Amino acid sequence: MIFAKDSTATSWLKSANGSDFPIQNLPYGVFSSGGSSSRVGVAIGDQVVDLAALHDSGLFADSPVAGENVFARDALNDFMAMGVDAWRAVRRRLVALFADEDVIDASGVAIATDPKLRDDADLQSKALMSASGVTMHMPSKVGNFVDFYSSKEHATNIGSMFRDPSNPLLPNWVHIPIGYNGRSSSVIVSGTDIVRPCGQTKADDADMPSFGPCRLLDIELEMGFFTGTANDLGTPIPASNAPDHIFGMGLVNDWSARDIQKWEYVPLGPFLGKSFATSVSPWVIPLDALAPFRVPPPVQEPDVLPYLRVDGDWGLDIDLRVELKSTQMTEAMTICRTNFKYMYWTIVQQLVHQTCNGTNVEPGDLYGSGTVSGPTPDSYGSMIELCWKGTKPLKLPTGEERKFLADGDTVSLSGVCNAPNFKVGFGDVCGTILPARSG
Amino acid sequence: MIFAKDSTATSWLKSANGSDFPIQNLPYGVFSSGGSSSRVGVAIGDQVVDLAALHDSGLFADSPVAGENVFARDALNDFMAMGVDAWRAVRRRLVALFADEDVIDASGVAIATDPKLRDDADLQSKALMSASGVTMHMPSKVGNFVDFYSSKEHATNIGSMFRDPSNPLLPNWVHIPIGYNGRSSSVIVSGTDIVRPCGQTKADDADMPSFGPCRLLDIELEMGFFTGTANDLGTPIPASNAPDHIFGMGLVNDWSARDIQKWEYVPLGPFLGKSFATSVSPWVIPLDALAPFRVPPPVQEPDVLPYLRVDGDWGLDIDLRVELKSTQMTEAMTICRTNFKYMYWTIVQQLVHQTCNGTNVEPGDLYGSGTVSGPTPDSYGSMIELCWKGTKPLKLPTGEERKFLADGDTVSLSGVCNAPNFKVGFGDVCGTILPARSG
Repeated sequence: MIFAKDSTATSWLKSANGSDFPIQNLPYGVFSSGGSSSRVGVAIGDQVVDLAALHDSGLFADSPVAGENVFARDALNDFMAMGVDAWRAVRRRLVALFADEDVIDASGVAIATDPKLRDDADLQSKALMSASGVTMHMPSKVGNFVDFYSSKEHATNIGSMFRDPSNPLLPNWVHIPIGYNGRSSSVIVSGTDIVRPCGQTKADDADMPSFGPCRLLDIELEMGFFTGTANDLGTPIPASNAPDHIFGMGLVNDWSARDIQKWEYVPLGPFLGKSFATSVSPWVIPLDALAPFRVPPPVQEPDVLPYLRVDGDWGLDIDLRVELKSTQMTEAMTICRTNFKYMYWTIVQQLVHQTCNGTNVEPGDLYGSGTVSGPTPDSYGSMIELCWKGTKPLKLPTGEERKFLADGDTVSLSGVCNAPNFKVGFGDVCGTILPARSG
Repeated sequence: MIFAKDSTATSWLKSANGSDFPIQNLPYGVFSSGGSSSRVGVAIGDQVVDLAALHDSGLFADSPVAGENVFARDALNDFMAMGVDAWRAVRRRLVALFADEDVIDASGVAIATDPKLRDDADLQSKALMSASGVTMHMPSKVGNFVDFYSSKEHATNIGSMFRDPSNPLLPNWVHIPIGYNGRSSSVIVSGTDIVRPCGQTKADDADMPSFGPCRLLDIELEMGFFTGTANDLGTPIPASNAPDHIFGMGLVNDWSARDIQKWEYVPLGPFLGKSFATSVSPWVIPLDALAPFRVPPPVQEPDVLPYLRVDGDWGLDIDLRVELKSTQMTEAMTICRTNFKYMYWTIVQQLVHQTCNGTNVEPGDLYGSGTVSGPTPDSYGSMIELCWKGTKPLKLPTGEERKFLADGDTVSLSGVCNAPNFKVGFGDVCGTILPARSG
């Protein structure tokens, strides 16, 4: 179910209309409430819909998910594995159940409303609960986490600071969506505290390294996509099929210890400077909910190799924001505004490249975009860029300064797609820095 | 149950004695036979012991694994998660069931034999099966795969070839067990064919990269350890506890596409040059079975930082061998003999470093050693070193030459620890190269 960009569809659930989670969004997550076991839900307005309960009530009969209750699980992986036809069937069903009148999709096909939930107060009391009263969990069990480096502005900024300002991009960057494997076990859901990591660092003027708490703790504003259906090991996913393997997207904060990273990363890349924590937002926005916001990505010059050529526009117009709040502040301060449309390499190209050697993706894998930086200094997606390697500290309203994160700081990333009559929000991903535990 | 190096203990199962899998070994794996579901087994002599069947027969009553049958699973993860006391109890039990007379462990404590299996032909017919008739599977579901780079000889060889022969080691190498995150989904069990990967490469004299089958396909002779009990995110594993988190070890072939790796790896490290396949041997040798073979590791100079100082000797005296067989050859040829004791960084230091920033390990994780190269040219653990970047091709007995792997080549890595009266073998990890599928 793809809505037209000018859709005016609304829901009988009034809190949905105009919110980040209208009927045009319907993101998936995993939640628990009142000590119950975790299960799959969908956010709409200020409510969470218990899909396991809808399934138990027979509302998914005659659907590809009619069999075993794939929503009575503590992760989305099994639903993700069912494939794009199942995802679309569930989405259409939810639209029918929540729309207040028949809706027309982007290709002109009408979906008739189904009053079964609207007219059944009992079922509503079982299946709808206030979002403020539930606990959100990791949306999927992440078996593989890959992090790309796909913002030309970010790669240029980092190359300028650490390598050569006159020639900041390495030669492979314009040919390959550069990426690396990250750590899966430490991918955590929004709201989990971040313990300042300890590690080995070496000052430029020191003879020997030392061990202790990270001094240059940073964020990276990213987005990420979750894969659905797997491919067989040895069989690449071609560009023509790649979108059907993408379940949806969320926000990612790739917390980074710059001083640890700097000393360890040659020649095999970032390791402990990144592996201590990666936070994701709890709601996964279906790829079809983002379709109205597809835009042409930046022109790729030189031309990419044929295997990376993708039909259609896969840039995504998503407004992004980073907020910082120290313990002294009463209100968070916006420190970055940018947009996902600036990304040079698209999510489809990332997936195609990732599997071109036959690597198998699995349901629930997470693929991070890399830091999203825009063209202007207030649109950079990391502290090291915003403060330009510590030379331009941020001034906080309390009079404090920040070059990197201090203990107690809370960082929140948020995202939203804006259409004339509705918006599709991502919610946020946040985390608070706790002091180091040893060292 | 740790046997003394001069143990003469034997089993009533005659094929065990003198084999790679004597009573001093007792490695764990996952197998199926005759269409049955996968379950946990132990190799002894030419037999596989079905631990799920032993459990069903009550032979693990009064043991930490007495509850739910943790061996009736398709992966070792749940047993690994139970911790070192459970592993040791099961190992003691197996020694009692298979020894032909009471045995004395390395600290002088006697274990009395238990004739329950020896004297029960019915149970033997249920629980023992010929190793040649079973199918081996991945020993664990690998949630996280890390690959280290811990051979000084290997790092020096690579640094000499690709960077600076007069200064081949980067400054961080002697201070940090350098490593990176690998791909979990493509870790596969021995015997799985390897499809030659396609990828993006660029010739030194070309203006633009091109896409096609890898031309420089290589092996890396490695070993790896599997973690057992997890630690909490944010809580490092100190050196004093680290050995108790290590379940056991196996052989690892980290297949490598050198041409893909060369073009992609700056600045974030190896990615698609490695992620297409990593093969592991099916049997995981318990850490206690390797205890008789602990030796002093190479002297670490300069001194390592305090967090990396480990009590006791954690070098391991394991003879390793690589064999190659082309389709024209009737017998495999040994192309490398080396020993794991040459590794500069020990498995305990690798685990301690990996978690020093608070990263959480999970049961079943795999930590590769990095290529094991010895001091002499016939002890190098990769083709790129054995053939010194293609300048010294291997001559095969058929008259063929190899600088890298050709389609149809089969590579097998094997390992064994030798004691005066017994050996502890690792079996082997093998794979055959299939032609590229596209490009």
